[in-house]
Amino acid sequence: MKQTPLADPRPADIKGPEDLRAMSPGEVRRLVPEIRRLLVDTVTRTGGHLGPNLGVVELSVALHRVFESPRDAILWDTGHQSYVHKILTGRAGDLGTLRRRGGLSGYPSRAESPHDVIENSHASTVLSWAAGLARAHGLRGERDRAVVAVIGDGALTGGMAWEALNNIAAAPGRPVIVVLNDNTRSYGPTAGGIAEHLAALRTGTARDHLFESLGLARLGPVDGHDITALETALRHARDLGRSVVVHCVTEKGRGHAPAEQDEADRQHAVRPLAPGRPGGDGSPSWTAVFGRELARLGAERPDLVAVTAAMLHPTGLTEFAGRHPDRTLDVGIAEQHAVTTAAGLALGGMHPVVAIYATFLNRAYDQLLLDAALHRAPLTLVLDRAGVTGDDGPSHNGMWDLSLLNTVPGLRVAAPRDAATLRRALREAVAVHDGPTAVRFPKGTTGPDIPAVDTVRGVDVLRRGELADLLLVSVGAMGGTCLEIASLLALDGVGVTVVDPRWIKPVPQALVELSLGHRLVATVEDNGRAGGAGAAVAQALGDAGAPAPVRTFGLPQRFLDHGSRAEILESAGLTAPRIADTLAAALLYSRAAAAPAPLPVPRPPVPGSAVPPH
Amino acid sequence: MKQTPLADPRPADIKGPEDLRAMSPGEVRRLVPEIRRLLVDTVTRTGGHLGPNLGVVELSVALHRVFESPRDAILWDTGHQSYVHKILTGRAGDLGTLRRRGGLSGYPSRAESPHDVIENSHASTVLSWAAGLARAHGLRGERDRAVVAVIGDGALTGGMAWEALNNIAAAPGRPVIVVLNDNTRSYGPTAGGIAEHLAALRTGTARDHLFESLGLARLGPVDGHDITALETALRHARDLGRSVVVHCVTEKGRGHAPAEQDEADRQHAVRPLAPGRPGGDGSPSWTAVFGRELARLGAERPDLVAVTAAMLHPTGLTEFAGRHPDRTLDVGIAEQHAVTTAAGLALGGMHPVVAIYATFLNRAYDQLLLDAALHRAPLTLVLDRAGVTGDDGPSHNGMWDLSLLNTVPGLRVAAPRDAATLRRALREAVAVHDGPTAVRFPKGTTGPDIPAVDTVRGVDVLRRGELADLLLVSVGAMGGTCLEIASLLALDGVGVTVVDPRWIKPVPQALVELSLGHRLVATVEDNGRAGGAGAAVAQALGDAGAPAPVRTFGLPQRFLDHGSRAEILESAGLTAPRIADTLAAALLYSRAAAAPAPLPVPRPPVPGSAVPPH
Repeated sequence: MKQTPLADPRPADIKGPEDLRAMSPGEVRRLVPEIRRLLVDTVTRTGGHLGPNLGVVELSVALHRVFESPRDAILWDTGHQSYVHKILTGRAGDLGTLRRRGGLSGYPSRAESPHDVIENSHASTVLSWAAGLARAHGLRGERDRAVVAVIGDGALTGGMAWEALNNIAAAPGRPVIVVLNDNTRSYGPTAGGIAEHLAALRTGTARDHLFESLGLARLGPVDGHDITALETALRHARDLGRSVVVHCVTEKGRGHAPAEQDEADRQHAVRPLAPGRPGGDGSPSWTAVFGRELARLGAERPDLVAVTAAMLHPTGLTEFAGRHPDRTLDVGIAEQHAVTTAAGLALGGMHPVVAIYATFLNRAYDQLLLDAALHRAPLTLVLDRAGVTGDDGPSHNGMWDLSLLNTVPGLRVAAPRDAATLRRALREAVAVHDGPTAVRFPKGTTGPDIPAVDTVRGVDVLRRGELADLLLVSVGAMGGTCLEIASLLALDGVGVTVVDPRWIKPVPQALVELSLGHRLVATVEDNGRAGGAGAAVAQALGDAGAPAPVRTFGLPQRFLDHGSRAEILESAGLTAPRIADTLAAALLYSRAAAAPAPLPVPRPPVPGSAVPPH
Repeated sequence: MKQTPLADPRPADIKGPEDLRAMSPGEVRRLVPEIRRLLVDTVTRTGGHLGPNLGVVELSVALHRVFESPRDAILWDTGHQSYVHKILTGRAGDLGTLRRRGGLSGYPSRAESPHDVIENSHASTVLSWAAGLARAHGLRGERDRAVVAVIGDGALTGGMAWEALNNIAAAPGRPVIVVLNDNTRSYGPTAGGIAEHLAALRTGTARDHLFESLGLARLGPVDGHDITALETALRHARDLGRSVVVHCVTEKGRGHAPAEQDEADRQHAVRPLAPGRPGGDGSPSWTAVFGRELARLGAERPDLVAVTAAMLHPTGLTEFAGRHPDRTLDVGIAEQHAVTTAAGLALGGMHPVVAIYATFLNRAYDQLLLDAALHRAPLTLVLDRAGVTGDDGPSHNGMWDLSLLNTVPGLRVAAPRDAATLRRALREAVAVHDGPTAVRFPKGTTGPDIPAVDTVRGVDVLRRGELADLLLVSVGAMGGTCLEIASLLALDGVGVTVVDPRWIKPVPQALVELSLGHRLVATVEDNGRAGGAGAAVAQALGDAGAPAPVRTFGLPQRFLDHGSRAEILESAGLTAPRIADTLAAALLYSRAAAAPAPLPVPRPPVPGSAVPPH
């Protein structure tokens, strides 16, 4: 039997945007609350970015009704607000698998759908993508293909967005439709002059016009929850034939009371519901330990300034900011500026603590190198979410930072193993007066403290091996894993000494001495192996003439699919049993290799003699 | 005898800005042409940035008369326009030593003068420095200290500058005086909507106002060669008590006919005069070889697009741009956007070739990683000025790029050794369809081609050793050095095989096989050793179980003072004789080490037994 015309359309019935375009305005109006219900029901269960998606329900619907994806490209900046887009492109039925291994990605994913054109996740990139794609369409004569880029007001504070706007404005004939999703927030309220300008545009009090001054057209402000108004504006933009900013005013968390009332971040991201949660082992998160200690230090040290790039709460600065608002600086999504303005603060006699996620350090490498390190600016970089983070997918794993940090002259780097060493590292870092330091730690809870049984010139000894077989160098949060490896190897009669340098750059000279008593040295880290802590230890030991071979364990240098941290570490072979097996085999080999080898006898060169075999 | 009042003031008599401030307006007017004469006479001899400094003579004078450096901080973006500032702060007598080892730096240098507050040299950073410094002054109650940041219109196209403007605008009570040195150019004309807006401001036709829309005050436009007008505007800005942009219109190359008439870049940088120059060995520059080949490829391949970040001529794109203007894109000083918009072009079916200096890749690491590599976008990154560049100082040496590139999954990297392999690498790179590639080469001339005597699965053999002592892996332009090392070692009876993988990432498996026949493997590169090509080779050989130890030769991981390329390589120990000596010693050691070593006997674990000695 046919559905009655008044039955509510179900999100799961939408097989693609053509179904959405075939709907009447009335059907669309009734669809919207169903989408919100699906989002709330699903995402509170799976975890994920709830607030951002609740804010773009009407906008996503209007976009897919006006534009014909995938002929027209609909590009999402940052990408965590693409759940509605996923629903509208036939993936409602899979939403329950969100962010799980093998399930839907929390970001656009080209493997999932032809409607997912890019799978970016760091903010502020979409306008550059759009400019390039529009230019390619122009060069290839594909002028009927519209390019639409959805970007939040928060992402406009990122410099890359401005580099792109500058170029989009000056490329007539290659129009880009910029849909500005203005919800006045990134996590918290958007920072800076741009936010104030957008507020003036919203209230009609702007005297000067930013986008127009750059040569862009502007439509709006449009109520971002009025589908009819949105469709009208988007159609107008499509037909304009020049680049335009469609200013859409939306409300993050819209239609879900707990999100609407959450002043901190409008339920930007929610954790999965799971029996027995929350709490895990009951230990505090790394972020909380850092935040607490920084607030304590802030009371002792009037020169400390906390700097965040639009992530005050997520990076643990809430308490410090509450106590010292004058010494708290939110620069917006602007990691480059964050690091260099911190160098400026240091130049002026303050000690800035820049707290960002490890993956976002990628954006500020040049500034760390030339502004902080070349100038020996005493500032502390705090890198949260270092190592495998898991369910946010490949771009959010903090597996590049140690490789970057290792190239920076004069920079000192700490990787604490637990809450106690994090507190200590932070105190040591802010006490450094002649250059920058970095402290990196992972996502999640700290677990129990791991005491040192001894200390050798700054290097903590976590376990003494009875035999001088293996020196195991633990990096940061891998301390527990390394002790487990040692226990497993001990069952095979292998003597393992486990050490934790705590400060891993420069490589402590004590490691050279410690290595001398051992047949093999191994390092364990959750950074990429290329240029990581292990590579640095291997190079330092080699340079010092230490004879023991070095095995480096870390993440393979590839993009890791989303999944839980445990699943990813398992698939990367970075678990205690796997590493112990490899080391046991290597130690056997090492014993064999220590047997007498044939001695090459020096011979005079023989012209024309046979070349070495290949 | 005293000078008569009408004698022209001599730049060399200025011991500091207080002398300048004591001058009458008439004296100042007569000083200006003397400064220009000194600049032209000196810089045409020493080489350096002539055009930019000729453009800011009056501006520098006015700044030092209105503000009291170093109490007030005068900060120069990029820094290569600070020669006049150096003259006015007592360094006129040393100008002849410019850019020579031990002489004046071509950029501000804190070691030279307390008037040099920062020594940045990559563009677009100064507003972040200024914002931080002004905030520090505010927090410390040093409110009488003005912060002045001089930035070019070209540098405003860099996203970082916008991140900073956004923050400066929103920080009342921490005023920054932004002096916009608008000469309409970076090297060439400034690109994009910002340039068009500044033009509208200059002609008084702007309807919307960019800086005001962000919440900044604006003064000007002011004739940047009228000292009286400049002083008036700067005094006004100083007394305003809020952040302000002083729009100064200057002419790059002003007052020197050859610069004024140079439409390409207004003598942005001139080469030192030297007897017997120009030409060197008569071979073309790497840049020229690249530019020629790209133009050739552009005729064959209608999908190639050249992308530059405000450096069309310096990166060799002139010929391509002349032939294919529609396929040439200058994005401004915007490396982040350059890489991501190239990824967008690739997404749209074109093959972009992004040509930038190696040192500026630092700005686009995140974009290369997540936009190009994660998306497997077929684009070619061409990195000029890789390795030691020398006289531009620490920030301009391209010694970080290989370390960055080595961390990027799926990226392929070529380091050609001569003109022939550069042409070949470029052809191979643009033929890759499933991901990004990078081709890196140094500054200077290519020298003669170095033929391969054999090829082993893609790895060129440059010389076959008669004995299986040493496998020497040459990276890029170090081919000549490696052959010289081999010749020196051959005199000692050491058999050296020299190979050049050409494509150094991923590390060719053939290197593993080649290494098996040798007692020692050594790598030579002019990248930093941390995470460089050598480290990657060592890790790959170790992972494959290749037994030969690997010695990696490269640049020490520190900031290198300015000097000639030869001087810097010498001081870094990266010359053939030094490397040959080290390797000869290592090979002796390697022979000794091959003798029977004491065999550790496995013992059962003894609880409480002695720990290994430290």
